[in-house]
Amino acid sequence: MNRSLLSRVRTPADVRALHPGQLDALAQEIRTFLVDRVSRTGGHLGPNLGVVELTIALHRVFESPRDTLVFDTGHQSYVHKLLTGRRDFEELRRRGGLSGYPSRAESEHDVVENSHASTALSWADGIAKANELQGRSDRHVVAVIGDGALTGGMAWEALNNIAEGQDRRLVVVVNDNGRSYAPTIGGLALHLDTLRTTQGYENVLSWGKRTLKRSGPPGRLAYDALHGLKKGIKDVVLPQGLFEDLGLKYVGPVDGHDEQAVERALRRAQAFGGPVIVHVITEKGRGYTPAEQDVADRFHAVGVIHPETGLPVAPSRFGWTSVFADEIVRIGRRRPDVVAITAAMLQPVGLAPFAAEFPHRVFDVGIAEQHAATSAAGMAFGGLHPVVAVYATFLNRAFDQVLMDVALHRAGVTFVLDRAGLTGDDGASHNGMWDMAMLAIVPGLRLAAPRDEQTLRTALREAVDVDDAPTVVRYPKSALVDEIPAIEDLDGVDVLARHDAPDAHARRVLVVGVGAMVGSALQVGEALAAHGLSVTVVDPRWVLPIPAALTKLVGDHDHAVTIEDGLVDGGVGAHVAQRASEHGILTPVQAFGIPRDFLPHASRDQLVGALRLTPQDITRDVLTALAGA
Amino acid sequence: MNRSLLSRVRTPADVRALHPGQLDALAQEIRTFLVDRVSRTGGHLGPNLGVVELTIALHRVFESPRDTLVFDTGHQSYVHKLLTGRRDFEELRRRGGLSGYPSRAESEHDVVENSHASTALSWADGIAKANELQGRSDRHVVAVIGDGALTGGMAWEALNNIAEGQDRRLVVVVNDNGRSYAPTIGGLALHLDTLRTTQGYENVLSWGKRTLKRSGPPGRLAYDALHGLKKGIKDVVLPQGLFEDLGLKYVGPVDGHDEQAVERALRRAQAFGGPVIVHVITEKGRGYTPAEQDVADRFHAVGVIHPETGLPVAPSRFGWTSVFADEIVRIGRRRPDVVAITAAMLQPVGLAPFAAEFPHRVFDVGIAEQHAATSAAGMAFGGLHPVVAVYATFLNRAFDQVLMDVALHRAGVTFVLDRAGLTGDDGASHNGMWDMAMLAIVPGLRLAAPRDEQTLRTALREAVDVDDAPTVVRYPKSALVDEIPAIEDLDGVDVLARHDAPDAHARRVLVVGVGAMVGSALQVGEALAAHGLSVTVVDPRWVLPIPAALTKLVGDHDHAVTIEDGLVDGGVGAHVAQRASEHGILTPVQAFGIPRDFLPHASRDQLVGALRLTPQDITRDVLTALAGA
Repeated sequence: MNRSLLSRVRTPADVRALHPGQLDALAQEIRTFLVDRVSRTGGHLGPNLGVVELTIALHRVFESPRDTLVFDTGHQSYVHKLLTGRRDFEELRRRGGLSGYPSRAESEHDVVENSHASTALSWADGIAKANELQGRSDRHVVAVIGDGALTGGMAWEALNNIAEGQDRRLVVVVNDNGRSYAPTIGGLALHLDTLRTTQGYENVLSWGKRTLKRSGPPGRLAYDALHGLKKGIKDVVLPQGLFEDLGLKYVGPVDGHDEQAVERALRRAQAFGGPVIVHVITEKGRGYTPAEQDVADRFHAVGVIHPETGLPVAPSRFGWTSVFADEIVRIGRRRPDVVAITAAMLQPVGLAPFAAEFPHRVFDVGIAEQHAATSAAGMAFGGLHPVVAVYATFLNRAFDQVLMDVALHRAGVTFVLDRAGLTGDDGASHNGMWDMAMLAIVPGLRLAAPRDEQTLRTALREAVDVDDAPTVVRYPKSALVDEIPAIEDLDGVDVLARHDAPDAHARRVLVVGVGAMVGSALQVGEALAAHGLSVTVVDPRWVLPIPAALTKLVGDHDHAVTIEDGLVDGGVGAHVAQRASEHGILTPVQAFGIPRDFLPHASRDQLVGALRLTPQDITRDVLTALAGA
Repeated sequence: MNRSLLSRVRTPADVRALHPGQLDALAQEIRTFLVDRVSRTGGHLGPNLGVVELTIALHRVFESPRDTLVFDTGHQSYVHKLLTGRRDFEELRRRGGLSGYPSRAESEHDVVENSHASTALSWADGIAKANELQGRSDRHVVAVIGDGALTGGMAWEALNNIAEGQDRRLVVVVNDNGRSYAPTIGGLALHLDTLRTTQGYENVLSWGKRTLKRSGPPGRLAYDALHGLKKGIKDVVLPQGLFEDLGLKYVGPVDGHDEQAVERALRRAQAFGGPVIVHVITEKGRGYTPAEQDVADRFHAVGVIHPETGLPVAPSRFGWTSVFADEIVRIGRRRPDVVAITAAMLQPVGLAPFAAEFPHRVFDVGIAEQHAATSAAGMAFGGLHPVVAVYATFLNRAFDQVLMDVALHRAGVTFVLDRAGLTGDDGASHNGMWDMAMLAIVPGLRLAAPRDEQTLRTALREAVDVDDAPTVVRYPKSALVDEIPAIEDLDGVDVLARHDAPDAHARRVLVVGVGAMVGSALQVGEALAAHGLSVTVVDPRWVLPIPAALTKLVGDHDHAVTIEDGLVDGGVGAHVAQRASEHGILTPVQAFGIPRDFLPHASRDQLVGALRLTPQDITRDVLTALAGA
């Protein structure tokens, strides 16, 4: 029985040892492997199917880890993992299994773990500078970045700096599939389009070959010279438009599914000895019919699917997103001034229905959160009410713009943060755990953490009614819960449960639930009541700034407990404590939330358990604190 | 007696009413006025001397506020202020006087108050989108941005989006003086250089005129066509390199000190009806000999100076910067792996001596804080120890990169934050008041707030010795103080004073001073002791994360007071309280710092008074709290 090629590849050296004639078969095996495994676990299927030949070529031309390979966002690194000895995809993105991104703990071939887009070129520039200063200037640094990620401002900052170092061996591979999550937009997309349809170098070369061979000895000489270039002489690397204007040489465009063509282009770049852009055209989802036919997102990220049909096995988890998608359309019908902004994620954040109904009122700005925030401030100045919908973790990239452009100018801009709190399987850089602590320091900003469908709809309506300050509505990736009714509204704070102890002298405990943790707060309340305590469970809904009514409630109790799925340090609980302290309230505030740490990938439930944030854990800790006081 | 032209200009309409022949005289009056007034108050002299003709032309071609003028960073808006009726420069940048930046409170002609660079194009894009959606698409939005600010990533994000809206009337004026604070670097600078030396449109036109006039009737026809273009036909706006590759038309380069040439270029752009780049070449400090001769920074921002000589009247205030400048050179001699990164501010942050001694170990990345942070992480990966020196307020722009690239990857990168705390006269967006609250949520990050020269030197040495986490050293703009010796070191916390009350049962108060507020802490300690309290005054030096020894000290006292020149919400004091609470310590922590608000421009002392942060204010509040407890 023939052993498969893939099973014989344990290190990049094994990839280099293969005959060129074997590479198509290897690529085919990798695609089959990816569809088979990722359909069982979920993951970034489309992007990885698109870079099979590119990754093979990278490992044949460059010598990782001597040369450094940096993958932007990193969700396209599955093939790289396979070629660097990691084949155990059974537990991909699960606790203890392979990360869905590069991971230094997994391999010396991995460098950058941050999955936020547009950073790879800055990493590469820094590594190349270090190589130069430390006498390793013969080593190459190769950054692989999508055309979508090039729309991010950091990529521009980096290109500008990379161009400055003409002696540094830095290769930027633009993996151009004309899209990131959504089709790439703006002037850059136009430019890449132009390049794509330009007579590429490969074509020029074959034309030259035909023409010169026909023209006798002088032509033959010229042909030989031309052919010589192919071996890696400087001038093969051609100037091309925008990149050349910045002082960067350009090779391409190259068919990213022709492994040999990609290899040739990379070798040329390698031989050049300075910074070079290699423009590779790929197809997301290549070779997997269901992905190729999915116009909307080409199976960018999938859950568990049937490998043959590509259809999901489980129903969609994104109930919160659907509620937002529906409510923002309703608001849009009523309010012609409401417009939507997305940073290359129209579908994932639920803006597709809004875009379908109001195509002129939705703006995809590219992977450009800074521009999203500040252009929103400009729109608010112009009389609109923009709703900027992003994943919670990505708003970190626009902190200064939220602070200095939106808040300082009292702009009525609403930020909608999807996937707030623990997201789990995408690992450290996807958890939306920083938003509340970060936004709590922004003057005038109001933040709502709805607990269920109805409070999400209400919060969104209230948010777009605020026209002189930033508003934020954040909700989790986890499943939408059943409605949790309030039994009373205390000046804007929802009272969800009251447990009066039989003993009139029982200690009075206030339990404050934030957003997705309200269910846990109710369970904690019940458990504490079962221990004979008087308990009030509340949800402030608008948690920032801390409502005065909540501070007063703290003062009316003997002990306060806050539970949030955000950073506990500087989080909502910490600010509740600070407000209470300022009012001379001595009630201890016991704050539960996510510790200040980077969390490994695991399911949300596993993380909640590991962080001791289950209702049982919290109840036990509260009882301990009460016993100690 | 002739009334001056300037005194007759009260509104932009007055500027439009002048004869072209009067404009040179107006420009001369404005320059004389600026040198006279700004030499008395201090301010951004150089940038404003460079945009006199440009600003006159802007107000003659466009109709503010019907058309919207947006100034990037805004420190070049003095001429704009003069032409929109604001002439009272006696109290420039002083409390109650004119702001040094655009200010909505001052004028309907001002839009953007944020002085952080590279935001103007995003504002303009948002305003243009609002104009389009709200049926005001005949109005123009004009953004004026320096070539230096174009190196910032946001500018790229915006250009990419501006190119997408080919029907929006948006004019980007690139005010190209080849520098921001320092000469502009990187590929972009190269490209602008190329454009500058390219046969410009004006030249092409005069060549065409000469050539075609000579060539008889057909030539004459062509000349007329060419001349017709001058009236504002679309095609006058020429494609040019990088901008054209993005889909943006380009006019220029134009001599920015030839008012009529600038007017013509702006009128052409105005007539085009879509997004256009107008490339204007200016000279910072133009017309003022001391500025023209100052190669280093062309009088970018000056204190009070002698108007004739340009020499400072008062000695430099920037003692802290000088100490850093000296100590980083000493460290550099000992540690060849230490490199420095600046974001276009080599001089202001004190890196010039380091650059002089180690020219290959300093990297000016442009106005690109994101790239500064992430490329530093790359350098650390490559074995270097980068020191990133920026103003405190600008690190906000790289929060995500500090978190996800530096901290997540445990990169040994040191951030040096100059002008931390209240800076005062530059207004809301320059105060370095957010850094500690923002950085307190970054896992693993250590932050030092030195109190004097010696603790700054020590902190810097300690910081560069940490190779597995980000470190931060922050210090203020205010004057360097005399050495404040410690009387004891309690596990890393400096005890500065102990006041034992005669009454052994007196309440024990812990006063914690942070950085520049240590002097105030000592005064508060003395005042409280005078009221019969037992007082310990300490300085933890490394304030983040909160040292365990400090938490223990809180537990050893009856009342704790923290004093910091950073945001009080989520600041060091808040984290001290949170750590104490977690340890079951019931000692109240009374935190003093800057409230969560945007502060008007005023002197630092005035702000300290207005915020009730003088030692007297704090002492009174502490006594009140103690009386209430």
